Amino acid sequence: MTARILDGKALSEEVLNSIRKEVASLSVKPCVAFVRVGDLPASATYVKRKQEAAASVGIESRLELLPASSTQAEIIAVISKLSRDEGVHGILVQSPLPEGINPQDVFNSVPSHKDVDGFSAANLGRLAQGDETAFVACTPLGVQTLLRHYHISTEGKHVVVVGRSMIVGRPLSLLLSCKEGLNATVTSCNKETENLPQLCRSADIIIVAAGCPGLIRKDWVKKGATVIDVGINRIADATKKNGYRIVGDVDFAEVVKVAGAITPVPGGVGPMTVASLMANTVKAARLSQIVKRADSPRVKVRA
Amino acid sequence: MTARILDGKALSEEVLNSIRKEVASLSVKPCVAFVRVGDLPASATYVKRKQEAAASVGIESRLELLPASSTQAEIIAVISKLSRDEGVHGILVQSPLPEGINPQDVFNSVPSHKDVDGFSAANLGRLAQGDETAFVACTPLGVQTLLRHYHISTEGKHVVVVGRSMIVGRPLSLLLSCKEGLNATVTSCNKETENLPQLCRSADIIIVAAGCPGLIRKDWVKKGATVIDVGINRIADATKKNGYRIVGDVDFAEVVKVAGAITPVPGGVGPMTVASLMANTVKAARLSQIVKRADSPRVKVRA
Repeated sequence: MTARILDGKALSEEVLNSIRKEVASLSVKPCVAFVRVGDLPASATYVKRKQEAAASVGIESRLELLPASSTQAEIIAVISKLSRDEGVHGILVQSPLPEGINPQDVFNSVPSHKDVDGFSAANLGRLAQGDETAFVACTPLGVQTLLRHYHISTEGKHVVVVGRSMIVGRPLSLLLSCKEGLNATVTSCNKETENLPQLCRSADIIIVAAGCPGLIRKDWVKKGATVIDVGINRIADATKKNGYRIVGDVDFAEVVKVAGAITPVPGGVGPMTVASLMANTVKAARLSQIVKRADSPRVKVRA
Repeated sequence: MTARILDGKALSEEVLNSIRKEVASLSVKPCVAFVRVGDLPASATYVKRKQEAAASVGIESRLELLPASSTQAEIIAVISKLSRDEGVHGILVQSPLPEGINPQDVFNSVPSHKDVDGFSAANLGRLAQGDETAFVACTPLGVQTLLRHYHISTEGKHVVVVGRSMIVGRPLSLLLSCKEGLNATVTSCNKETENLPQLCRSADIIIVAAGCPGLIRKDWVKKGATVIDVGINRIADATKKNGYRIVGDVDFAEVVKVAGAITPVPGGVGPMTVASLMANTVKAARLSQIVKRADSPRVKVRA
């Protein structure tokens, strides 16, 4: 037996194709603004990829480049300017921010109706309240789309989420446990959790976002369970031209033999994250039109 | 063997005593405003008890009484007025609200620095972000105080939270899983969860807020586990003058024989909830003073 491979690359292309059609039918051209602070090459690459994906589906993008020496007030001032700009529907602040900047304060300054990354307290709180209009962070949304596409139900299932980051683990746990949404029994833990192997073995679905290569091993996985690998780790590999290869948090070669379904790395959750950003941007653009049409200014605060 | 009884009544009196001293030392008299909509006798009783507790520790309280026919806009207008009132430090909207009113929209209109009930999206989101300055909902805060007082560590422990309400289960799960806070492995489930007995048996700590009398039975509890009963259910009892008695969600008489520690109902979590509201009101009053002294108006949005 070998697990079904959940092909995030192929699915993300389907999702992007459908977004492309949706964008073409809209009366407004969706626009996402990226705020990048400092010169980290990895951040530059990530933003560039997201901009390319945007261009490929007809979404406009802008880039606000700030020096690494920027103060928190300066970063927030740029976000405020973008917040007031009616031509900008979504705002994404690229992580990590330089030392000395409180990322939470910066994320919380993005107004919830433009918060396409879903990192603000207002959006996280709405997610916790089970508000389906909230923007869901891109990786959790990508995981949800992947599970739905492959008809892997979470209803009443035991999902173990390994990792409690603000970007993945925490919003994913909230999303999965919403009665109106995925209605799973969710255990939120991290790689330091006592009895982690035993806990994972009790799971119908394991989702790991721990940043720890090979963490999930064959004997941690119940036969037939679904394994979603959010990890993206570079490990040295002399056989590769660039000297490294990308692996996830799962020992894929072994786990594929016992799992019922599994995401590869690369080509699993990663591409879904970028597609989800595009979906959120279109949602924000639609929302801006609803707000324009609405009589009540209160609609504005509901994202 | 019989479990240690976690005496919330005695502890709440200790907490209230310490709040009374703190209030006496403050330069401002803390003030909490209650918003009650309609004529439900139970709501009137709850608000009255909270007002009595406030008076007993030197906290001022106000009551805004609105007719059951009030529109959402009218309720929110009253909250806006209280939000602008510098003499009011905390605002509590008593649940339940009449049909046709969206409780989330009403709770979200309470500014986060006055949200002593911790029900707004902004506060829930900050809790999810691990922000220790967030207001924590009163029942979860009461449970935390109880566990700390009795030196029951949650660090690395497996806590099963049965119930996912906005008032108890969800904020409690968030609070327990914060790395900076209680750092537990948290399973969030509800009374419909598959294999609930088995799941509960794997827990070091069971916290139940399911509104289901006698749900947790002796054979669901691991020997020596801690059992926190948040349930408050009225059941008919002809031997009582008023025709009913109050029981929790735990079969106390049986579970007390296997648990290591247990809260009684009444006299466990209930009194801690009221004491926590007073603690949150004092925190809000202190916050208002910090905001007054602060140079930056941005401090205001940080609650």
